[in-house]
Amino acid sequence: MKTKLTVIKIGGNVIDDAETLKHVLQEFSELNSPKILIHGGGKIASELSLKLGIQPKMIEGRRITDAETLKVVTMAYGGLVNKNIVALLQAFGCDALGLTGADANVIPAQKRANKEIDYGYVGDFETDSINIERLSFFIEGGLTPVFCALTHDKNGSLLNTNADTLAAGIATALSKKYDVKLIYCFEKPGVLLDAEDDKTLIRELGYLHYQQLKDDGIIHTGMIPKLENAFAARRHGIDVGIKHALDLNKSAGTILL
Amino acid sequence: MKTKLTVIKIGGNVIDDAETLKHVLQEFSELNSPKILIHGGGKIASELSLKLGIQPKMIEGRRITDAETLKVVTMAYGGLVNKNIVALLQAFGCDALGLTGADANVIPAQKRANKEIDYGYVGDFETDSINIERLSFFIEGGLTPVFCALTHDKNGSLLNTNADTLAAGIATALSKKYDVKLIYCFEKPGVLLDAEDDKTLIRELGYLHYQQLKDDGIIHTGMIPKLENAFAARRHGIDVGIKHALDLNKSAGTILL
Repeated sequence: MKTKLTVIKIGGNVIDDAETLKHVLQEFSELNSPKILIHGGGKIASELSLKLGIQPKMIEGRRITDAETLKVVTMAYGGLVNKNIVALLQAFGCDALGLTGADANVIPAQKRANKEIDYGYVGDFETDSINIERLSFFIEGGLTPVFCALTHDKNGSLLNTNADTLAAGIATALSKKYDVKLIYCFEKPGVLLDAEDDKTLIRELGYLHYQQLKDDGIIHTGMIPKLENAFAARRHGIDVGIKHALDLNKSAGTILL
Repeated sequence: MKTKLTVIKIGGNVIDDAETLKHVLQEFSELNSPKILIHGGGKIASELSLKLGIQPKMIEGRRITDAETLKVVTMAYGGLVNKNIVALLQAFGCDALGLTGADANVIPAQKRANKEIDYGYVGDFETDSINIERLSFFIEGGLTPVFCALTHDKNGSLLNTNADTLAAGIATALSKKYDVKLIYCFEKPGVLLDAEDDKTLIRELGYLHYQQLKDDGIIHTGMIPKLENAFAARRHGIDVGIKHALDLNKSAGTILL
């Protein structure tokens, strides 16, 4: 029987509030099974970018990452957010190890080639390229990997990668070796029929139902790429949940069928 | 017989120039024995600080680290500098792992208590507290730890720590298990009698000689804390060299007696 492994993604809005972040990290620390945390930090990166006089550019929710913006996200994701999360987890007794995909070459990637839009230093990775052996080495050694959404091109450059995609990829790659559960945490109790009404939580969501809700415009904008990533992992047989960050160990949120 | 381990500290001026940095990292990658890199980044932190409207404050070469400055050094050291070095080392085939002292709890520290000067979030560590087991786990696993000069207080806060002191501490702690060689690399060929004349290199320097040179004002300012750290490691029986970053594998520089 495979060992259980919980992979949790926490989004930017969870990170922005210090008290919420502490609460989530404390609950995360209390999870008994081996675990991995993946975090975003887009809002902090955008704020830093503006302070440094660089106007953030987004296309369909994806950050256009020129050389200066790559520095900004490296500082925000790899430095400020990642290292503070690691320090907080250590305070909660969780032996966290902060990682980018460059560290120990855990996630090699390729700079995105797109003829229509130049995304800049944005990286796409193959799930098969994820360094399962090295991640297992850390996990079996009692460490809890904490990922920011940076990968590398193996030629010396870091690459900005979507954190939701990274979470799905890591969960999928590790499902070869572990019994993986993937949880996306954010500021809502799960997938809602009405984003403004928490009571409209969808407790179970299948792919056809999701497509219908998307066609009807009920699921829209940021939830679409998140759910596409989540369903991609689900198709590999991984249990996937989407829930409120403050309900990590209590509510089931939305479970993907 | 103990395994050889080379601990190399590279200073801020080496990091500032992209070509010099690449050269040093390539030479570092070519070292056959297990190795650890420790880097500074003070100039990059000061530049970032100024861009963000925070005037850097230094007392006797030590940065006063208030809460905002701690964020700046976390971004600069832990993010920008550390992760770029890791990505470059990976490109040179060196399996680097970027670390702060919070990661895997490798260097727990205490916030400095000083009645006269409030250094803020500055950390002092005990050499005996360095997590030798965890560092060995990484090294024996074929990884090359790359440290920025941040530690943590085990209560959730990162702490700014002098990189020269960190290098000496790590070298000393690991000398219990490894045959350690410590090399301080910077922009000069070693300890000079005349800082402006590379031909005045002191090839061998003992502690009494150093004290005499210090009393005579020949060794001064930034070299004093560097040499104090270097001699502290030397007293533990560690081979210590001080040399030009571009001569990492060629010149002996200054050898401490």
